[in-house]
Amino acid sequence: MNQSTVILQFICPDRPRLVSELSSWIADNGGNIIHADHHTDRGAGLFLSRIEWDFKGFRLNRELLLSEVNSLAHRLKGTARVSFSDCSPKVAIFVSKQSHCLVDLLWRVQSNELPMKLALVVSNHQDLQSICNDFGVPFRYIKVDTKDKLIAEEKIIEVLYQHQIELIVLAKYMQILSANFLSKYPTVINIHHSFLPAFKGANPYQRAWERGVKLIGATAHYVTEELDDGPIIDQAIAHVSHRDDVVDLIRKGRDTERIALARAVRLHLRRQVMVYRGRTAVFA
Amino acid sequence: MNQSTVILQFICPDRPRLVSELSSWIADNGGNIIHADHHTDRGAGLFLSRIEWDFKGFRLNRELLLSEVNSLAHRLKGTARVSFSDCSPKVAIFVSKQSHCLVDLLWRVQSNELPMKLALVVSNHQDLQSICNDFGVPFRYIKVDTKDKLIAEEKIIEVLYQHQIELIVLAKYMQILSANFLSKYPTVINIHHSFLPAFKGANPYQRAWERGVKLIGATAHYVTEELDDGPIIDQAIAHVSHRDDVVDLIRKGRDTERIALARAVRLHLRRQVMVYRGRTAVFA
Amino acid sequence: MNQSTVILQFICPDRPRLVSELSSWIADNGGNIIHADHHTDRGAGLFLSRIEWDFKGFRLNRELLLSEVNSLAHRLKGTARVSFSDCSPKVAIFVSKQSHCLVDLLWRVQSNELPMKLALVVSNHQDLQSICNDFGVPFRYIKVDTKDKLIAEEKIIEVLYQHQIELIVLAKYMQILSANFLSKYPTVINIHHSFLPAFKGANPYQRAWERGVKLIGATAHYVTEELDDGPIIDQAIAHVSHRDDVVDLIRKGRDTERIALARAVRLHLRRQVMVYRGRTAVFA
Amino acid sequence: MNQSTVILQFICPDRPRLVSELSSWIADNGGNIIHADHHTDRGAGLFLSRIEWDFKGFRLNRELLLSEVNSLAHRLKGTARVSFSDCSPKVAIFVSKQSHCLVDLLWRVQSNELPMKLALVVSNHQDLQSICNDFGVPFRYIKVDTKDKLIAEEKIIEVLYQHQIELIVLAKYMQILSANFLSKYPTVINIHHSFLPAFKGANPYQRAWERGVKLIGATAHYVTEELDDGPIIDQAIAHVSHRDDVVDLIRKGRDTERIALARAVRLHLRRQVMVYRGRTAVFA
Repeated sequence: MNQSTVILQFICPDRPRLVSELSSWIADNGGNIIHADHHTDRGAGLFLSRIEWDFKGFRLNRELLLSEVNSLAHRLKGTARVSFSDCSPKVAIFVSKQSHCLVDLLWRVQSNELPMKLALVVSNHQDLQSICNDFGVPFRYIKVDTKDKLIAEEKIIEVLYQHQIELIVLAKYMQILSANFLSKYPTVINIHHSFLPAFKGANPYQRAWERGVKLIGATAHYVTEELDDGPIIDQAIAHVSHRDDVVDLIRKGRDTERIALARAVRLHLRRQVMVYRGRTAVFA
Repeated sequence: MNQSTVILQFICPDRPRLVSELSSWIADNGGNIIHADHHTDRGAGLFLSRIEWDFKGFRLNRELLLSEVNSLAHRLKGTARVSFSDCSPKVAIFVSKQSHCLVDLLWRVQSNELPMKLALVVSNHQDLQSICNDFGVPFRYIKVDTKDKLIAEEKIIEVLYQHQIELIVLAKYMQILSANFLSKYPTVINIHHSFLPAFKGANPYQRAWERGVKLIGATAHYVTEELDDGPIIDQAIAHVSHRDDVVDLIRKGRDTERIALARAVRLHLRRQVMVYRGRTAVFA
Repeated sequence: MNQSTVILQFICPDRPRLVSELSSWIADNGGNIIHADHHTDRGAGLFLSRIEWDFKGFRLNRELLLSEVNSLAHRLKGTARVSFSDCSPKVAIFVSKQSHCLVDLLWRVQSNELPMKLALVVSNHQDLQSICNDFGVPFRYIKVDTKDKLIAEEKIIEVLYQHQIELIVLAKYMQILSANFLSKYPTVINIHHSFLPAFKGANPYQRAWERGVKLIGATAHYVTEELDDGPIIDQAIAHVSHRDDVVDLIRKGRDTERIALARAVRLHLRRQVMVYRGRTAVFA
Repeated sequence: MNQSTVILQFICPDRPRLVSELSSWIADNGGNIIHADHHTDRGAGLFLSRIEWDFKGFRLNRELLLSEVNSLAHRLKGTARVSFSDCSPKVAIFVSKQSHCLVDLLWRVQSNELPMKLALVVSNHQDLQSICNDFGVPFRYIKVDTKDKLIAEEKIIEVLYQHQIELIVLAKYMQILSANFLSKYPTVINIHHSFLPAFKGANPYQRAWERGVKLIGATAHYVTEELDDGPIIDQAIAHVSHRDDVVDLIRKGRDTERIALARAVRLHLRRQVMVYRGRTAVFA
């Protein structure tokens, strides 16, 4: 598993020969496929493919590979994304005051569960600086005033540019990102503290308690302009009973949040998630 | 487990000595407690108790027992319900065209999983008559016209009176019961084909598919006038993926519906559910 | 989904070009792939593939298709199995006295959840004849004496031959099939009433209760000569607590058995299961 | 929830009046019951009770309370344990090299999820010293030589005495504790990396992979002399597929281990677990 691999994610209008064309191109260039998943959404008329092969022995260098894939995508009227398993993306984690998702992610990065370079943690509060120090991760405090939100966002964007961030993980960041921000940094994973689409919006645990649900959940999803409405990557649930107060729901909810967010980030980093039409295909 | 037991369900404003008063009254009359669960909802200031004891050896007959419990409830400003495990309630199952919940319940009744007397099945369609015949259960077809709904309901109510029905189970009955009906038959359990409160209303599986959820669920709840908003008894979930079409969601959903409904009916019949303030306490 | 499809299941030693060869052969003959899953077990050095494509428009008839696939398998030193979605296999369900899995399967067959022709139910007891009659399924009672087991098996084998049975489902059949039987009918799915490999053998629920486990399970697996040791297809679990007696474990266990067996049979029928080295790959 | 409460855990031979006697004694002394759970194991002829009440307003001081409970237990031929929610027990966590359970517990202690005083971490390796420093928890390295195990244990016991340890949590401590050790420190919670009783002993994930299971699990249990055979407190599971290598099983297993161990420790600390006859009753 330590060998470097290439991962191709490909979406295009469905038509015959697609698996053959992609796999033959790989074979013709000496690639040995390790994993290959294909999915056809017949209603949408779309073909989705994720293929992973050994980079060792492949006859094209990275530049040529990208160039040929782009030609392929152009010819098939689709879109392609190529990733190399030895190039971990640079990631920024955004937090506010709650530590449970952050500590979980820090531990998983340290334990090599998540193939990423954690460049820094950004926060609108100073509470979690110390734990970042413990794990040796740079922490950047950027205050967000309700009236000057866009100024704060500009500062954040500048920091992200400096660190060449490719992925943002909102690990209980209690600020809404603007459309402008998302246009510059479109790849953002958020953890929502409910089983979406139930209890969209504020205070989901209080409302879940009042409604007397028997299961609570958490939803990890990509962020879109429409709040709590982005493509869902993963969901986790926990059983609750009348014995559980709101604080117990919050406590149990933290575990579902940690699990769902960590799984979603890993799936994303391993390029197992493909987004189309507001939904995800997760090749896991 | 075959011995006859008494089950007391008691709700009253919380104050000291309640467990003691209830359990001493039982002990003073020779009752040996088998199960006892108490719950205090501190926010609501309410005490809820479910106590089950051997009827054999208890010194009060049924009439006296009920009379003394009523006095107790009156003195403690609460409400009490007494059930005897040897008196199974008479139940009517309402269906339309879908058979999955009906067949499941028929089999469970036949297998003695559900302590109830299934008096009849009521339906606004004739499709499921044959399966009822197979299981030896009376089937009553009562057509429901959209313009004459209340007339149909009157016919149903008459049939229910004749059979002295105590509990109605809506096993995919695709008609909404009127406020008038519910005032006469308030104890109705419904299975809703979604993980409430997500996807309230029509076509939940289609909408769940479009939203791209990774888990679907079903919710068994008591029926109230407010559609899909009654106290939740049980919820079940199933994992789904992008490989699942809407028909797959429906198929997987059927299993969650069967499981959640059967569990809810059993919990109700064993008097393990207590309703207060739009919520349930489930002593399971 | 109603169109007829071809499903190819292919296992061979891993080497480059395999996906390309298979998919190009399909494309060259005019096949449009709907689903394609490939898995490489690097430790075993094996490549496993399941490809499904529209039969309509494919340029080979069934005979030629099978012949070319066999050539392909021979050249690649592998094994291939071809199935057509419009040819449902003939299935025999074996039961003894317990009805829960049988009724569940009968209902699912009737509801078109399981693409199979249920030819008959075989039993060593007469208890379940009536329910088979209700569902219009032939029932064949073949008594099994402990001392004449092989004679009974010969009778069963004769019946299976007559009905051209391709798959046997043991839905709580409380007899062990001999090596001789399995050599003639090797494709047998069994439901085991425990979370294998825990509680192999007899009385698993009693032993689970004594051990005080908090979860119980059921395991659907292919039958091999080694009892309870065949390749696992699916497992399901249920939560239990100290409040549950052995009878409650058995009751909850029945639900896990029904779910796991039905899922396993469906996965098998849709050719989503591939067996190798005592394990299964399940492309679901 | 911040008020101090008394928790009584009571086990005695079953007979009438037990709930009444316990609750009347509490009421007579001015105690207002918040939670009360009773369970009768009819097979064992045992009555188990857990009652929690407000200490504020209770007319007995701690000393008198304990003395009266002991008299009660003596008279009813049972055993009683009294805990005060404002007296968190002193706990030692034992670790070796793996950090996942330790970090999880450290975070939960810091977040006030676990009502305990974490006195120190004991380890036979030095790897986890740094993380303990980060969380401000004393770390004690005590080397364990295979030939001088008992000497190491004596050192450990001395340290535990010094810190007045009441509970030991084995958070992936890869040493077996001797009968002598357990006689001195009988209250030890362990996390076992399998779904007991499957895969007892070494290398459970490797063996689970080879067996091709579709679910893996972890089991938190009290430690007894008989390895992997102590009373089970909690179990957690995760789904696996043929796509998961042994390393994936280990990774997914870590999450089940963290969840099951944390839940078990919390249940124990809140005195929700009662042990009898090698099993637990968990009042949750």
